[in-house]
Amino acid sequence: MSEIRSTPLAVIVVAWLVALGIPGGVLSAAADKPAEGGERAVRAVLAAQIGAWNRGDLNGYMAGYWNSPDLVFFSNGQETRGWQSTLDRYRARYQGEGKQMGTLDFPVLDVLTLGPDAALARGRWRLRMPDGKELSGMTSVFFRKLPDSWRIVHDHSSGDCN
Amino acid sequence: MSEIRSTPLAVIVVAWLVALGIPGGVLSAAADKPAEGGERAVRAVLAAQIGAWNRGDLNGYMAGYWNSPDLVFFSNGQETRGWQSTLDRYRARYQGEGKQMGTLDFPVLDVLTLGPDAALARGRWRLRMPDGKELSGMTSVFFRKLPDSWRIVHDHSSGDCN
Repeated sequence: MSEIRSTPLAVIVVAWLVALGIPGGVLSAAADKPAEGGERAVRAVLAAQIGAWNRGDLNGYMAGYWNSPDLVFFSNGQETRGWQSTLDRYRARYQGEGKQMGTLDFPVLDVLTLGPDAALARGRWRLRMPDGKELSGMTSVFFRKLPDSWRIVHDHSSGDCN
Repeated sequence: MSEIRSTPLAVIVVAWLVALGIPGGVLSAAADKPAEGGERAVRAVLAAQIGAWNRGDLNGYMAGYWNSPDLVFFSNGQETRGWQSTLDRYRARYQGEGKQMGTLDFPVLDVLTLGPDAALARGRWRLRMPDGKELSGMTSVFFRKLPDSWRIVHDHSSGDCN
């Protein structure tokens, strides 16, 4: 303690500058590492969704989405709002009588990391159906890093009209 | 200078804590103001696009987009990459022989600000054509704050199949 009181002013000033500089350095590192970690996390969520879809596990697939009434899902000309409504839509569309879920993949997908807690995954979705028919289209999936994990908060997926 | 050397330790510690706290406060303020400014800027770009579209000025409309080969535009099942290709697509679709641009608006639109330099605008687009027909669908438009202005770097717009 007596050392502080007897420290020359120049040393105190330098110590202050270093101290004031530290938060900047910490923030720069934080901005870089989550960018890589964010892309890894987003791709892991999508891989888990593909796995769940392809074993017919719609609840497992839905785990990638923000479980909130504020989840937004756009498909061609329609908006669906809320996690439960999105699940209901998938059920009606892919698990109704005579419906098939098919085999899902994303043959093209890139991830734009938008900061430490936001990312956009975009590319082409493809569903290969048991009868050999292939459905395909584009997807833009917006992720936020929520307290528990990265989750889709906005999904815009669309397909050809045929 | 002699005052610093003779300052009691508690005062020095408090001064350090205050000094270390300042960057946090500055950053919080910086994170809030661009959020509001970001939404205003994004809405201004979209309003300018609507104005340009509705006077048949496709180049003016395209000014809202990032003028880059890396601009990405998804429409239903198709990807268009690059500013020029996106303009060409609009020209073929809305200014070809016998084509009409119609009157554009976004009857529903909300903006999610994702940080100081990124935002997602999403909602419903609508085109009212001269023959009374109405085209409509969903749009998810991702903006970045570029050195000159906020610009659309990724547009996913889709419509009903009818």
